[in-house]
Amino acid sequence: MASVLPASKRSVRSDRNTYVGKRFVHVKNPYLDSMDEDILYHLDLGTKTHNLPAMFGDVKFVCVGGSPNRMKAFALFVQKELRLEEAEEDIKDICAGTDRYCMYKTGPVLAISHGMGIPSISIMLHELIKLLHHARCCDVTIIRIGTSGGIGIAPGTVVITDIAVDSFFKPRFEQVILDNIVTRNTELDKELSEELFNCSKEIPNFPTLIGHTMCTYDFYEGQGRLDGALCSFSREKKLDYLKRAYEAGVRNIEMESTVFAAICGLCGLKAKSTLIKPQTF
Amino acid sequence: MASVLPASKRSVRSDRNTYVGKRFVHVKNPYLDSMDEDILYHLDLGTKTHNLPAMFGDVKFVCVGGSPNRMKAFALFVQKELRLEEAEEDIKDICAGTDRYCMYKTGPVLAISHGMGIPSISIMLHELIKLLHHARCCDVTIIRIGTSGGIGIAPGTVVITDIAVDSFFKPRFEQVILDNIVTRNTELDKELSEELFNCSKEIPNFPTLIGHTMCTYDFYEGQGRLDGALCSFSREKKLDYLKRAYEAGVRNIEMESTVFAAICGLCGLKAKSTLIKPQTF
Repeated sequence: MASVLPASKRSVRSDRNTYVGKRFVHVKNPYLDSMDEDILYHLDLGTKTHNLPAMFGDVKFVCVGGSPNRMKAFALFVQKELRLEEAEEDIKDICAGTDRYCMYKTGPVLAISHGMGIPSISIMLHELIKLLHHARCCDVTIIRIGTSGGIGIAPGTVVITDIAVDSFFKPRFEQVILDNIVTRNTELDKELSEELFNCSKEIPNFPTLIGHTMCTYDFYEGQGRLDGALCSFSREKKLDYLKRAYEAGVRNIEMESTVFAAICGLCGLKAKSTLIKPQTF
Repeated sequence: MASVLPASKRSVRSDRNTYVGKRFVHVKNPYLDSMDEDILYHLDLGTKTHNLPAMFGDVKFVCVGGSPNRMKAFALFVQKELRLEEAEEDIKDICAGTDRYCMYKTGPVLAISHGMGIPSISIMLHELIKLLHHARCCDVTIIRIGTSGGIGIAPGTVVITDIAVDSFFKPRFEQVILDNIVTRNTELDKELSEELFNCSKEIPNFPTLIGHTMCTYDFYEGQGRLDGALCSFSREKKLDYLKRAYEAGVRNIEMESTVFAAICGLCGLKAKSTLIKPQTF
């Protein structure tokens, strides 16, 4: 992968005051502190089996994406960007004991795969946030990077999400907790969005915009695709829906952003955003 | 893995009339037949790049599960059970070109991983059903095998799902198609459930029952766990919820059964069921 970050942006935000100060990643669970051991089942890590502060205490950036292979490629890219190739050992999958997710660490950057869809990323986020909490990490920025379907924009355009919306274009994440429906906020960090957007301006031929990202539970019928095993709507209905999405400010569609925004927002991962490169439509 | 099927059950249903007759796997999408090429993106297969009838035309059983490693282990187990070890080449991942899912074929049995959660299995099912349709498969039985959390049953008990229910204990799958909510049926094939149950009786120490399976979108808060990064309910509320689930006939909880039942039911995979071995609770 070629370097896309301009040299001026390669310092790890040491020149910024905004994120200075100990803003710890926190859990919102009164039961957790009284547990003798916390096993992060799907990451194959635990508080008794691993020294989490030693392994992860220096993490400042977490980048997540659906595909394990792409997250490994991303970790290798970051290793090169941070000039850590010689200082570090080979990049190894920290979660090699499980095939649910893959995790790579290079310097202060952690890269993790999350599979596809809200439930899959949700399990990973619960365990990642507990990991960062147990490791006493502070001032952590999390960014989701992934492919998506663009709406009314040129293929290849990068969309930086300001707000994640659901299939009804509402900025909310509705979640069933026991049998109650709880609605959570899906706003993402404005300052980080602008900072990422400014970075993009310094790179030639890197079309980028800030817009709403729509998150669906279904790839085929839920995103108006006409090529699934099931399709009960017409081409006209599909185009009408996508047009209404565009008018509501939606610029791309994917399958994880609402729960990503909701959970990270609740747990003190203050500087977060979603950076998505549309591939289709 | 040790053999669990009694010798009398190892014939591939050649003695049964119920499934005799060409019941083709069908798609419900009027646009599909007019497409010049159908690319099954997440399986790395396509109608122009692969001879799907030659590769998959003899498939009679499809077994799906979350973990890629477990599905490979399952395929090797089936290969041994069907005594195909010498006749076949090594089992290879048919979807090796992508890291989204893994797929293994041995004789008439296809084993595929689907990741975690409704959206992830839903993408796989759309593409699997199109694959079986393009390959002109008929009389296909599909079984989901996975771990789950048991409710009020001994750990290790196998639950054969009769009906998949949602977090409100309702036998339905609510899906957003464009911005309409569509409710789909989640009943599973009764005859297959009974047949699987009868098989279990012939195996010593194989505790098995038929019951409802609850499908949630969330592993931690959605299933009443007290050890996630977020937990907003009390232990009492959790136990009350699980008690009400038990009273409604639920015997285990997982994250894929409603959409599995709904999509397979719509596409002519008549003989289907979910076989789940609870690990936790």
